[in-house]
Order: sequence, then structure tokens, then C-alpha cells
Amino acid sequence: MTERGFPAEEFRARVARAQQRMATADLEALLLTTEPDVRYFTGFLTRFWESPTRPWFLLVPARGDPIAVIPSIGADLMGAAWIEDIRTWVSPNYADDGVGLLADTLREIVSTSGRIGTPSGAETHLRMPLESWERLSRALGERKLVTDADILKRLRMTKSEREIAKIRQACEIANRAFARTPDIIRAGEPLDRVFRTFQIACLQEGADWIAYLSGAAGPGGYGDVISPATSKPLSPGDVLMLDTGLVWDGYFCDFDRNFSVGAPDPKTEDAYKRLLEASDAAFERAKPGATTADLFEAMNQALSGGGGGSAVGRFGHGLGMQLTEPPSLIAEDRQVLEPGMVLTLEPGHEFEPGRLMVHEENIVIREHGAEYLSEPAPRRLPRLST
Amino acid sequence: MTERGFPAEEFRARVARAQQRMATADLEALLLTTEPDVRYFTGFLTRFWESPTRPWFLLVPARGDPIAVIPSIGADLMGAAWIEDIRTWVSPNYADDGVGLLADTLREIVSTSGRIGTPSGAETHLRMPLESWERLSRALGERKLVTDADILKRLRMTKSEREIAKIRQACEIANRAFARTPDIIRAGEPLDRVFRTFQIACLQEGADWIAYLSGAAGPGGYGDVISPATSKPLSPGDVLMLDTGLVWDGYFCDFDRNFSVGAPDPKTEDAYKRLLEASDAAFERAKPGATTADLFEAMNQALSGGGGGSAVGRFGHGLGMQLTEPPSLIAEDRQVLEPGMVLTLEPGHEFEPGRLMVHEENIVIREHGAEYLSEPAPRRLPRLST
Repeated sequence: MTERGFPAEEFRARVARAQQRMATADLEALLLTTEPDVRYFTGFLTRFWESPTRPWFLLVPARGDPIAVIPSIGADLMGAAWIEDIRTWVSPNYADDGVGLLADTLREIVSTSGRIGTPSGAETHLRMPLESWERLSRALGERKLVTDADILKRLRMTKSEREIAKIRQACEIANRAFARTPDIIRAGEPLDRVFRTFQIACLQEGADWIAYLSGAAGPGGYGDVISPATSKPLSPGDVLMLDTGLVWDGYFCDFDRNFSVGAPDPKTEDAYKRLLEASDAAFERAKPGATTADLFEAMNQALSGGGGGSAVGRFGHGLGMQLTEPPSLIAEDRQVLEPGMVLTLEPGHEFEPGRLMVHEENIVIREHGAEYLSEPAPRRLPRLST
Repeated sequence: MTERGFPAEEFRARVARAQQRMATADLEALLLTTEPDVRYFTGFLTRFWESPTRPWFLLVPARGDPIAVIPSIGADLMGAAWIEDIRTWVSPNYADDGVGLLADTLREIVSTSGRIGTPSGAETHLRMPLESWERLSRALGERKLVTDADILKRLRMTKSEREIAKIRQACEIANRAFARTPDIIRAGEPLDRVFRTFQIACLQEGADWIAYLSGAAGPGGYGDVISPATSKPLSPGDVLMLDTGLVWDGYFCDFDRNFSVGAPDPKTEDAYKRLLEASDAAFERAKPGATTADLFEAMNQALSGGGGGSAVGRFGHGLGMQLTEPPSLIAEDRQVLEPGMVLTLEPGHEFEPGRLMVHEENIVIREHGAEYLSEPAPRRLPRLST
């Protein structure tokens, strides 16, 4: 049984790696505002982030332990793992929702003309009001708010063994839910009920919650992979796809499975076979030293002889504390793979106009190659009863 | 049965109200980047926002229909409701992830020195990378990116009848799940299994998904309301609290229920009674013309004779497309209540050191007073079997 939480040594190691990179980037502090970035250094795990009302701040100084500057409602939980310096205000506060306390703390730990890094590049955002950001910037005088030089992205991209174990646990829960699907879903069920039934199965198999479920169904393939479920019943000949990002102890899996309602037509069976060949090809290439672009090319070659690409925009991505993380499996991404990176392989193709099919596996990069975290999909399209 | 989706007339009315306020605020366009703001004008409902990778943009011009500037993966779904002008790029794109297309579109609809409003105040954030925001700002030349003058906040705070019906539907699903709780949860169950069982009940009763569940259990009261569930079993004398934000067709409920495992001690029973008196008092005050501060004071008076407040920071909030929305029920909030506002009444008190109890109801403001959307909690603390 995988344990919940992390020992303090895990967080200390993350902070040490961050501080090493901060020195190189000439940053005297990191300012973090989003759920995964705050959690990465603190272990602060709560669904309370679903409420957009209150801002939360974590500061990583150049030396020493992180300082949490947070609403008082979070003080107990923030103190539960290893963070000791916790400064709180009662939020919401219309006169000053934490900015004053944050600025005071930054003035304390950053020299008069020091630089403060905050994640600013692709796939990031600043989780605080723009007006507060501008106030903060003015309150800091000569101290400069700059990019974090991708430090968070780089650190989080390579997972520790403890993180990998949690992602594996999430994958195993989803494996069991997918394995039960032919027993619990059959022709005639409306898609919205299918979505509910599958989420129930994920909870029964041990998910803490289901942060993401998408899916689609259509005759011999589907048209779109992000639309909500309608009440249209599954019909013989439909392909059903379910794609889940369930969470265990704050870590995600993200993979899908396809099912044929009754016997698939030969074109559908062939399209499925090519998807598996594509993810197989990427799996073979997924070794330290190869790049994300190499994995994209391997899949693109297998699917379309190299002329492909799709509206989805990529053939996989990083995975961990979020459903999707850097890097992206696209031709332009030149990330060199390293042991500990967790990726999804997610080839997709519109094999006939309006007939799309996507397939997804979760892997971790090891010294000698890739290892599956998801149980690889069956070689023939599994069937649901009609 | 409440219908899913909205007719185009609902969206047109929202746009017309926005454009009226934009004229007053001298804004030639609104730039929206977050899930609820984009959905408010478009009906674009998908769990795909769980992936932070891709930015999404919606522009509301001074005249005419909104323009979506979005990743190609969303084009089909964006076209499904009523939006016609959909401009897409294949994302992720490291050279330019939509900023060029967004800037071109803004230059087309905003005059050379025009003002573009984006939500910037309390409870908002900008869902795009800071680096993209700075690039956009430079690309716009003399056109100014400014606050939206709280237009989104003001518009979304008052709900249409169709929106209220969806929130009511979410509440009714939660009512049924809470009603079943004494049948499905009993002493000895670990709290993490309680959380799973309750989420399953919500799905069985018709939730599309459960975006939020928090809870706590402790002897005669609990210590914290945002921590994740541990595996500690429920014991006789514990108070269990479950607080759910489940979603139906994109709209939330947000209320909790308390349960005593076996018979409660008199102090616990009394603390519960005072919570109900507090929410009753606020319910009575909740009429058009009263303010959010009045509701706070009514609850604060009932709980502590006026000397109270808590680390939670407020006694309720707005509710709708998000788990929590403006306004806040705090002493400093002077929002005048209007028909159509949906609020939570959420009194809480630490009635003895380390023994906290919170209670929550969902209401809508009508011409003549408040109406419950949640089924009001039982007058005596309900019991779970030991």
C-alpha cells in the first residue's frame, strides 16, 4: 500500500533544488500562487482551491525554509506537514486581501534591488487579482517581479519515486474501473448515465475524487473529445471512449480506453490497431536522451506516414500533480527525456471525416527505457454487450 | 425536469446587459479568460479546463456578438450553442500560443486608443501566462488593457430564472444524498471511505460531477474544515460534517450537513441549535434592500452577541457557476440584495477551544424575501448509527 503524504525530507530536497537554480538565475525569492506550485513545496493538499475567493501565497527564499502567507482558514492544514513560518490574515478583506502582508514579508527576505521570480511562461498563470499584482509591484519599490526562469516547470517535470508511486496508484485505480466497464455499461445506456456509472466505479476502486472525466460515443468513431455527455443512448456499432483524470493523494492519472458497442466494423478495428502501433512506437523511443519531438514523430509516422497532426494539437504531455503538465509531445518541443519523467502517450487521428479516435497510456521514463504506469490497452478493441 | 443548456436569447440578453455597462465604463471590448466568464456568454461547458495548458479567450465587443479566440480542439463545442465568430489556432504553440490572433482580433474591433476591460478585482484572476499578457499589451500599442469595472461580477451576481433552476437542481441532488446519509454511513467507517460513499451517493442521485467535497469529524465538533479525509474511523460522539459543491449542467450547490454519531452531548446539541438560529435570523433579513453586512450581523449577533467572527472569514457568499462567487457575507461588504441573487448562509463558530461547527444553506432572494434552494437542515442534529 502506497503511503499518503511525504516526509519532510522530500520537501527539503525540493527546496534545495529550487534554491540551487534560484542562485543561478539571480532570484532572491520565488513567489508562488497556484495550487500545485504551493503544494509542491508544502504538502498543502485541499479541495478548497475550488473556491476562487481567497489568494494564497508561498515564498521560497534564497536560503531557509518556505514562508506561507495565507488566509487564516488554512493555517491549521498548512502547519500539518512541515511548514513552520505561516503568516495569516482573515480573508476576504476588501481593504487589503493579503498584499500588505505579502509585501512586508518580501521586503524582509529580499534585498532592496533583489529579484523575485514567479512562474510566467507557457501553462502558468498568476492566481491573484491583477489589481493586487499591480499593488504588490508598487509596494516593492526597486525590487523586481520577474519570471521564475522556468524553475517550477523544470523541477516538477522530473518526479521522485514517491511521486511516481502515487501516480501509479491513481493509474491502478483507473485500470480496475476500466476493467469493470464491460460489466457495468452496455448498449442502450444514455451517455450521461455512462459517465456517472464510470465515476462511481472509480470511487469504488479507491479514487479520492474524479477531477476530470471526458468521453464520447459515435458510430464507428466520435466527433469531439471535450463535449459534456448528452442523454443519447449507446447504440450498436458505436465506439465509446472514456478518458479519466482521477486523483489519489493529490496525484493524477490521465488515460482513456475505447470500447466497441457490439462488433466493430473493420475500419474501426483498423483505426484502433494503428493507434496502438503509434503508442507502441513512442513507447519504444521513450528512453533518456530521446526528445519529446522524437515521440511525436514516432506516433505521427505510425499514424499517417508523417503528414499528420490534429486539432487536438499534441500526442501527449506531462502528468503528475495536474492532469496535464509540461512537456508537450509536439514537433516543436525539444525536451530531452530524463529518468523520472511521467508522460502520457496520446495518439489520435480522424481516420475518416467526422470519425475521430484517440488512445492514451501513462508511462514513466527509467534509465533503460519506458515503463507503463497504466496497464496497456488490450490489443483488440474491447466490446460492450448489445 | 429542468432543461440543459440555455436558449440563444439568454446569452443575447447577457451580452446586451454587458454592452450597456461597457458603454458607461467607456470600454470597447471585454477580454475574458476564465472558465465561468467565457461560459457565461457562450455556454461553452467542458471539464477540459482542468488542463492548464491552453489559454482560451472570449471578446465581447461594444456592439455585435462575442468572438471566441480559442485552441482548435474547442472549435466544435464552441460552435454548438450560439457563437458564430470562432477563430482558432492549433495549441500548444510555443512560438505564439494565441496572442497574435488575439491581438489581431482586438485591433479589428477596438479603436486605436480604445480601452479593453478585463476582470481585475477581488476573486478574479487572469488565466493566461504573464509573459503572454505582457506581449499582448505591447502588441496593442495605444489600446489600453484596464479593469472591466466589475461588469462581470455585477452581471453574474444576479441570476436568471434559468440559472436559478439549475442551482435548485444541484441542491435537490445534494438534498437526496444527505437524506440517505444515515442509511449509508455509520460508526466505524474511516473518514476517507465516508467521503467516497457520499460522492457515490451524489452521482447516484444525478450529479454530473462533484467539484468539491470537504468535511470533518471529531469528538463533539471538529477542528478544521478544509483538510482532506484521513483513514480515522468515525467514533460514537463524533460530529461528522460533509460540505458538497456538486455540479449539474455547470451550476453548483454548496451546502453542508452535520451528523452526530450516536447521541450528541448537550453542548454539541446547543451549538447546533445556535447555528440554525443564526441562519434563520439571516434568512429573515434576506430581503431586497438589505445588505450582505446585515446578514452577517444577524448571524454574528445570534452566535456570539455580536463579538464574533472566525478564522473562516465570512458567514456565506454568492453561488452559481462557481462554488463561491461574490458577494461575501462579512461586515465590510455593503452589497444591496436584489431579486435573483443566490447566496449561501454559512454561520460557523468555535463553541469551545478546538470544537468548531459550521452550517450552510442555499437561498435565492425574491421580491418579498428569501426562498430556500437547499432543503433546510433538520432542527435537531441528525444521528448516524453506532
